[in-house]
Amino acid sequence: MDLAALLDRIADDVAPEVGRGAVADYIPALARVRPGFGIAVADVDGGVHGAGDWLRPFSVQSMSKVFTLALVLARGDDVWTRVGREPSGDPFNSLVQLEHEDGIPRNPFINAGALVVTDELTCHGDAVGALLSFLRAESGHADIDVDAEVAASEAGHADRNRALAYFMASYGNMRNPVPSVLDQYVRQCSIAMSCRDVARSALFLARHGIRNDGTRLLGLSSAKRINAVMLTCGTYDAAGEFAYRVGLPGKSGVGGGIVAIVPGRCAVCVWSPGLDARGNSVAGVAALDRFTTLTGWSVF
Amino acid sequence: MDLAALLDRIADDVAPEVGRGAVADYIPALARVRPGFGIAVADVDGGVHGAGDWLRPFSVQSMSKVFTLALVLARGDDVWTRVGREPSGDPFNSLVQLEHEDGIPRNPFINAGALVVTDELTCHGDAVGALLSFLRAESGHADIDVDAEVAASEAGHADRNRALAYFMASYGNMRNPVPSVLDQYVRQCSIAMSCRDVARSALFLARHGIRNDGTRLLGLSSAKRINAVMLTCGTYDAAGEFAYRVGLPGKSGVGGGIVAIVPGRCAVCVWSPGLDARGNSVAGVAALDRFTTLTGWSVF
Amino acid sequence: MDLAALLDRIADDVAPEVGRGAVADYIPALARVRPGFGIAVADVDGGVHGAGDWLRPFSVQSMSKVFTLALVLARGDDVWTRVGREPSGDPFNSLVQLEHEDGIPRNPFINAGALVVTDELTCHGDAVGALLSFLRAESGHADIDVDAEVAASEAGHADRNRALAYFMASYGNMRNPVPSVLDQYVRQCSIAMSCRDVARSALFLARHGIRNDGTRLLGLSSAKRINAVMLTCGTYDAAGEFAYRVGLPGKSGVGGGIVAIVPGRCAVCVWSPGLDARGNSVAGVAALDRFTTLTGWSVF
Amino acid sequence: MDLAALLDRIADDVAPEVGRGAVADYIPALARVRPGFGIAVADVDGGVHGAGDWLRPFSVQSMSKVFTLALVLARGDDVWTRVGREPSGDPFNSLVQLEHEDGIPRNPFINAGALVVTDELTCHGDAVGALLSFLRAESGHADIDVDAEVAASEAGHADRNRALAYFMASYGNMRNPVPSVLDQYVRQCSIAMSCRDVARSALFLARHGIRNDGTRLLGLSSAKRINAVMLTCGTYDAAGEFAYRVGLPGKSGVGGGIVAIVPGRCAVCVWSPGLDARGNSVAGVAALDRFTTLTGWSVF
Repeated sequence: MDLAALLDRIADDVAPEVGRGAVADYIPALARVRPGFGIAVADVDGGVHGAGDWLRPFSVQSMSKVFTLALVLARGDDVWTRVGREPSGDPFNSLVQLEHEDGIPRNPFINAGALVVTDELTCHGDAVGALLSFLRAESGHADIDVDAEVAASEAGHADRNRALAYFMASYGNMRNPVPSVLDQYVRQCSIAMSCRDVARSALFLARHGIRNDGTRLLGLSSAKRINAVMLTCGTYDAAGEFAYRVGLPGKSGVGGGIVAIVPGRCAVCVWSPGLDARGNSVAGVAALDRFTTLTGWSVF
Repeated sequence: MDLAALLDRIADDVAPEVGRGAVADYIPALARVRPGFGIAVADVDGGVHGAGDWLRPFSVQSMSKVFTLALVLARGDDVWTRVGREPSGDPFNSLVQLEHEDGIPRNPFINAGALVVTDELTCHGDAVGALLSFLRAESGHADIDVDAEVAASEAGHADRNRALAYFMASYGNMRNPVPSVLDQYVRQCSIAMSCRDVARSALFLARHGIRNDGTRLLGLSSAKRINAVMLTCGTYDAAGEFAYRVGLPGKSGVGGGIVAIVPGRCAVCVWSPGLDARGNSVAGVAALDRFTTLTGWSVF
Repeated sequence: MDLAALLDRIADDVAPEVGRGAVADYIPALARVRPGFGIAVADVDGGVHGAGDWLRPFSVQSMSKVFTLALVLARGDDVWTRVGREPSGDPFNSLVQLEHEDGIPRNPFINAGALVVTDELTCHGDAVGALLSFLRAESGHADIDVDAEVAASEAGHADRNRALAYFMASYGNMRNPVPSVLDQYVRQCSIAMSCRDVARSALFLARHGIRNDGTRLLGLSSAKRINAVMLTCGTYDAAGEFAYRVGLPGKSGVGGGIVAIVPGRCAVCVWSPGLDARGNSVAGVAALDRFTTLTGWSVF
Repeated sequence: MDLAALLDRIADDVAPEVGRGAVADYIPALARVRPGFGIAVADVDGGVHGAGDWLRPFSVQSMSKVFTLALVLARGDDVWTRVGREPSGDPFNSLVQLEHEDGIPRNPFINAGALVVTDELTCHGDAVGALLSFLRAESGHADIDVDAEVAASEAGHADRNRALAYFMASYGNMRNPVPSVLDQYVRQCSIAMSCRDVARSALFLARHGIRNDGTRLLGLSSAKRINAVMLTCGTYDAAGEFAYRVGLPGKSGVGGGIVAIVPGRCAVCVWSPGLDARGNSVAGVAALDRFTTLTGWSVF
């Protein structure tokens, strides 16, 4: 299969979708982003292909949750006592479930769960520092960094996440002071990366735990299990629809990116900032739908 | 891989789990079932292997929902206007979600959704008759039938499902009279089959829509998408955990059976009547966990 | 105070509100009712005054719940083991709460609770017969009866109440067969009475349990306690607002009637079929608001 | 009626209840309080009677919500755009409802609603200062003050209230910075007063808005309406039960106090620190139940 040609075709096919949807307007710095579309595929043998704005950095937002979860699991399974693995079945930052289940978030990919993961990672040192080290190493781009303007913008609109964190603290499910966890969380979400860099950085999930330098980050089971959590919980309350249409483990962010894994083959990253009502990139989902239809590479 | 030996090994490995859990006691006829364990694998080339009580018929219960969904989708996609595709995130027969979402059930594998599927199938004629024809043809066992005692027992304990059906009717989401839909539903759940027969009958999902006689029941996309719905919604509110541990599309029933699909390879059916708190077979889940660990055949 | 003049003044004051709101359109026979307004006050000494359409019969609907509750409590307090006394805080026929609280309705004035009361009354014989006897005796009108057309119309639109009843049956909280309880319930709601007759029939609550013939229906405490339940739960999820604006125990019906009690003084019944979003008569609430403002007779 | 003798009798009658229930253990300073019982009645003519520990100061906690609401309403009705008037139907600090209703708390007596009231009062200056001035003037005790130890203890256990406040801030329903509102809220709850002083301070509600010095704090309607909100919402999710048993507007606090109003007659304050499962004083509710039974002074 000629992946380069395939990606160009997908970029053409989804062009009518680019510009549809709404950008995330609750974060001013994100609301100003220019429309566009990019797609990159990194295969397990080291090749990378792309189309469109695949080298243009964007805000990774919730896609960062995949990497912090992997870094925490690389240190052990303890975090699973503090966060579940079930789909939330509710909008992505709901407090309802948290109250019914005594401060234990449903899964690590809703905001409450990601705050727990960041809190756990913070117990081992500088969470954002560890995350940047990993992303720089995997992508080969030493200049990947937090976008300070986005971080400042998010910090000024973080009352709901602050509420989530204090609520979990009231149940004893916060180890570090809420302000410092929130600071780490806001900064991890504000990292800017290109489709190419995200796809490269997520390849360890297609390789069942093996990093780009051949060392092992995670055991085979842990890597497969992150894929499972991505498939059931990675796209907010549209996980069922995403599995139905795309059929791959995937994790989206309100910056317009989605990273998806074809186990044993490749990691894919798409980006386009217009979001659907559930917070997933309109053109991004369409592109992944085309990708699995054309390649036949869904997991099902 | 020597599947026969593998299944024997799994039967040995999970022996300590057999008898654990609780049988479904709200249906008297199920509460009296003897303990046991069976596993069968039907591969896409036609081979079938088994271990333990793999030829012993048991009550398929909610596993029937996979087959009625397939039979409805074989006639078109209309049913998706009446039922969603998202995990429920709530216990398996919850009315809460149904009320919040105006009588549209979250997915076809919770009871409310399955009632809609049965109602839709009933629009095309005798739903149970069509289901039995399909199962008899696929399994090669012409004597597969409804267990009249189980059906009578369930019909006497169906007030909650009756409530679900009338509730959907109040939203205009029932096409046929509730008593006749309930009768079809109770009888479809009361069909008795062995692990061997279930695995054979589910093979079309591993073959992306092709029946055992080589004819096509469903298009490739539809078949893949049923697998996707099974993975995200097939084991009540433990779908995330099942994906995490087993990593296969699967559908469980309170009779103690679970059917799972390895796309492109095989269909697996396990049975053991002791259920965990979420209604899934304790030894069955353990056996599938062993199966994917030993074969490496999870979809992730 | 010249009550006759006062009621005329109130009728004038609320004239602009008459015709506002929407009639209950889910029951065809109610949807066709002509606009109008009536108010009647029956005082504890036997006098009755009225204004507007105070002699015109209308469908009592949920106002019947006050009388069935009183008739059940006249036989003992057992019903309180099957139904609570707390405001529901949710729309008037919600199943959510019923599921969270194991089939025990929040209070006797939401539909689920009233079904339990009717079921309990049915254990002692013909519920509707007992109710009609009581209403005929108190009002002095022997021709008070069920409106057969309204009853037939409601019976054809009772799926939601049927769902509620079967749902409670699934928790063991139904003593009689659901179809017969529903039949009694639909017929009790379909009784037609005038404002005059309702006010006369409710006087026992203003007289702390004493009927119009001087005999005692209920003990003083029981009568006061029905008033308490009316004040906290009598107007669906607008009970707080009704207490705030009107300040009297009251019970509304979707037929447009509201009965209110001034303990120790009088019973008031207003009627006007236009309903607000919460199911209470727009002109009726406005009239009661005027009534307590002009008389100073709120309980607060 | 000899009130002094009546109160002694009530103190005797409820003696077996004193010590029952559990003290509020989430606030360490409250968990250490000694058992006891006090009752005081302040009548509208200026007389005050008491029994038991009626002069012993205790932590007013949520009873303070009545006074801050009155002080806010004395400045206008604007606060009603930010908080509702309906019973919550849920435990007293639930976030569920807040999420469903876009950051508008159900009523001013649940924690979220009281935070809004305190926030609103803070817009006019020092909320706790205004509250202390009022309480000192009404009670005639210039030394009424915040208990610094209790305030410190609460401030250290305020994560849940902090979560509520940030959550409302995320909906734009907080005017002042959350830390300063929380500080005011914690301190208002930590005021220590005796039954005598609380009863005296609440007399304006029995006098329909008139303070002890004869000046008017609130209009007649506003005062009656606070009573209405107390009756429907004053005792957490036991408001229906309290109305049923006691039949008076009342507001409880987890310090073990309850203040109740007999409109036109008197204000009553009871105190005993053992709480029932819903956070209301066990002996306190029993005493008020005896009080209305013996006097016949329920509002119904």
